[in-house]
Amino acid sequence: MEIHTYEKEFFDLLKRISHYSEAVALMHWDSRTGAPKNGSEDRAESIGQLSTDIFNIQTSDRMKELIDALYERFDDLSEDTKKAVELAKKEYEENKKIPEAEYKEYVILCSKAETAWEEAKGKSDFSLFSPYLEQLIECNKRFITYWGYQEHPYDALLDLFEPGVTVKVLDQLFSELKEAIIPLVKQVTASGNKPDTSFITKAFPKEKQKELSLYFLQELGYDFDGGRLDETVHPFATTMNRGDVRVTTRYDEKDFRTAIFGTIHECGHAVYEQNIDEALSGTNLSDGASMGIHESQSLFYENFIGRNKHFWTPYYKKIQEASPEQFKDISLDDFVRAINESKPSFIRVEADELTYPLHIIIRYEIEKAIFSNEVSVEELPSLWNQKYQDYLGITPQTDAEGILQDVHWAGGDFGYFPSYALGYMYAAQLKQKMLEDIPEFDTLLERGEFHPIKQWLTEKVHIHGKRKKPLDIIKDATGEELNVRYLIEYLSNKYSNLYLS
Amino acid sequence: MEIHTYEKEFFDLLKRISHYSEAVALMHWDSRTGAPKNGSEDRAESIGQLSTDIFNIQTSDRMKELIDALYERFDDLSEDTKKAVELAKKEYEENKKIPEAEYKEYVILCSKAETAWEEAKGKSDFSLFSPYLEQLIECNKRFITYWGYQEHPYDALLDLFEPGVTVKVLDQLFSELKEAIIPLVKQVTASGNKPDTSFITKAFPKEKQKELSLYFLQELGYDFDGGRLDETVHPFATTMNRGDVRVTTRYDEKDFRTAIFGTIHECGHAVYEQNIDEALSGTNLSDGASMGIHESQSLFYENFIGRNKHFWTPYYKKIQEASPEQFKDISLDDFVRAINESKPSFIRVEADELTYPLHIIIRYEIEKAIFSNEVSVEELPSLWNQKYQDYLGITPQTDAEGILQDVHWAGGDFGYFPSYALGYMYAAQLKQKMLEDIPEFDTLLERGEFHPIKQWLTEKVHIHGKRKKPLDIIKDATGEELNVRYLIEYLSNKYSNLYLS
Repeated sequence: MEIHTYEKEFFDLLKRISHYSEAVALMHWDSRTGAPKNGSEDRAESIGQLSTDIFNIQTSDRMKELIDALYERFDDLSEDTKKAVELAKKEYEENKKIPEAEYKEYVILCSKAETAWEEAKGKSDFSLFSPYLEQLIECNKRFITYWGYQEHPYDALLDLFEPGVTVKVLDQLFSELKEAIIPLVKQVTASGNKPDTSFITKAFPKEKQKELSLYFLQELGYDFDGGRLDETVHPFATTMNRGDVRVTTRYDEKDFRTAIFGTIHECGHAVYEQNIDEALSGTNLSDGASMGIHESQSLFYENFIGRNKHFWTPYYKKIQEASPEQFKDISLDDFVRAINESKPSFIRVEADELTYPLHIIIRYEIEKAIFSNEVSVEELPSLWNQKYQDYLGITPQTDAEGILQDVHWAGGDFGYFPSYALGYMYAAQLKQKMLEDIPEFDTLLERGEFHPIKQWLTEKVHIHGKRKKPLDIIKDATGEELNVRYLIEYLSNKYSNLYLS
Repeated sequence: MEIHTYEKEFFDLLKRISHYSEAVALMHWDSRTGAPKNGSEDRAESIGQLSTDIFNIQTSDRMKELIDALYERFDDLSEDTKKAVELAKKEYEENKKIPEAEYKEYVILCSKAETAWEEAKGKSDFSLFSPYLEQLIECNKRFITYWGYQEHPYDALLDLFEPGVTVKVLDQLFSELKEAIIPLVKQVTASGNKPDTSFITKAFPKEKQKELSLYFLQELGYDFDGGRLDETVHPFATTMNRGDVRVTTRYDEKDFRTAIFGTIHECGHAVYEQNIDEALSGTNLSDGASMGIHESQSLFYENFIGRNKHFWTPYYKKIQEASPEQFKDISLDDFVRAINESKPSFIRVEADELTYPLHIIIRYEIEKAIFSNEVSVEELPSLWNQKYQDYLGITPQTDAEGILQDVHWAGGDFGYFPSYALGYMYAAQLKQKMLEDIPEFDTLLERGEFHPIKQWLTEKVHIHGKRKKPLDIIKDATGEELNVRYLIEYLSNKYSNLYLS
């Protein structure tokens, strides 16, 4: 057969997966934005059916034959086709190397583990969850032997979320980061120069929060012809297809930050997906490069734009108008200081910009220890608490505010956490490079002119989709390897100014 | 193989179809309730993919093998399984008898015809649409030869929408109906005793219409744990699964009737689907018995409840409270007369209860003439206009308000229209029988007690899903064959009282 015939069939299969994925994404979105409760059981089955269909195509004999046929004439393929075939091969092998029966057992185990975790968290009792965690770890250790690895068993798990990032890379990055941040956190904690945050939790009408969320999305370059904003308990961005990338947020009348910064964060994710090269639509390359690169975009929007004083120069009055009583005696400076408050806390998802990386490093070190067989499951809570004491100077009093706080492990997601911290590093390095190309960055924020910033991110990051690996995106965009120095400098400057001057 | 093995595989296939159908229904619903416009092209392809998957399962060799295997042991099957297998066989044969290439051409033709029809309607120029209509009719004539028929070629098309209903049946029903209604319409038109309807089109706030729509749905027994109300241009009810049956409506601030009666109409459709026997879920029997039976439920709610004076006895004050200025000088009697205004008009979807059946009869007679080869396409507009003059005493001045008004033919739906009139007849006959079992019907309406009414409809109609054919449902529910007398009596009494007393 002609190579083009194989190529066509290969892309037809990818297209079919993209259609099923659209249906699955819409069913998930709908379930979280207002589907009636009585339909949830059938809905779960419909999602299960289509997810299985996708898995079956990805691991089908025909997919293997097409990949093999295309590899035989690899040099004749276009660059994009090469990338698509490589990715399909990786997915095929990742999924196929695990025996089917074992995978099915694992899916059931995850489902039971999530239920057990919920109960355990509710009762703050790690012992209710630990037998499941034990089994989940055993399964993942077996998967690692199936998948194989070069240097460290944990590398096999990291590769699922951040292709190319290894223990060797992370050990270096995280040790530098720790060395810089732990003393800084101590100084900030000890500082007498603390912001007044008492006004933050005063009543802010929900309708006004919604108006502002819509307004900021529009201002920041989110395209409403290709998306919409809805309300959910846990905010997210999700893609139906390239012309339909949706954002959700949550409105807390006692804390406007949830909606405002949550929306700006999801805006970063969504703008990414709205600007992937249209030529990749319907292929497996039409997606973010990795979890970490995705997070770099949301954090860029949330922190480097949304928590920047210059951003609020034109917009703070919008906040004041929306809730006049709350902000009438609060100056722009007071406002900016308050939304950048930093203090050690137990819960990762509520942590501030400065302490957040330490939450991630703790999880990384624990996961690495688990997959190096250096720690038993029963020792985990005390290891967790010890690290919180060592790095953040606080000790969780319960399992719920300690080791049980995150759902990730219950869902079988080991190796995922580092992506959050990598996202910070990527964002900081991109920001530094952007300043070389757009030295008037702060002035643009003061003018509410975001187009050049979005354009830069699109050219360097968005447009490429999954064509490039995460570390290559950073190297190509900034001209150097990933370097944690930029995040350290950013945090040091920012928090020294806020707390130590 | 054991019969149970075949049975299990057969029902697994039906279940799979139901999961794909859920995805398709949700994508349709979403496209109409607020999906962003840039995603519409990919969305259409995703719907196309899953619809094709459903068609492919229904017409698969394996489906045929399972049906054949189950027919070999037909007597051993449960009653429900027998019905499911019969229906699957009918679908298989309907779809399989048309050569694949011919069917694909037909789908493309319909798509082009709809575009041409839109343009033709916009320009009010039948000649832009007639070449497509010609081809559509030719295709359907060929399909009729593939499907076969007993007495009249048009029977093959009627059977697609109303199994068991034939030209012979309809000729009888419609001639009686015409004989009674045409003179009545003339008398009503000539009557000097006409209602004042000037207040109808005064401003009625949209938010209040929405509140009332939600309120009436709740009152009338629609279950919000298994559904939701949204806004669309063309209102509809749609089923994701048995626990998720959604309703949409349209708010016209210059005509509250659109939302109020539209919502009550869709409520009838939705309450039907919410009360199909749960045991049928995930099978091909978990659906309305036919288009006509479905319409009988929506019309029962809209007309026999919603346009009944007794219904408004407790609720008219709700309308008055919602738009006080509009209704302050309008008595309950004035209101009820106005919402029951009857006068000949050109547009079917805007017609009142009394004249509506004549719009349907005109279409029926024309379709029958087409498939009896008694009329050419170019003669259709004048035939149409002549019938409007003969039956309603008015002549359309343009094709747009005449033969081009409905989309059905452009979509290839010949044989569909009679279901609308059958729905009226079914509803009237059910109402008559219900009065024997629930003589206090009007008193219940005056008390806002709908449960016994809904319960009666559930037992006689809803619960059976597609287990029974439409005419059997009516016979079993009322103890006699379909009889047009009940609709005639209802319309005669109602409109004599309103206009001729």
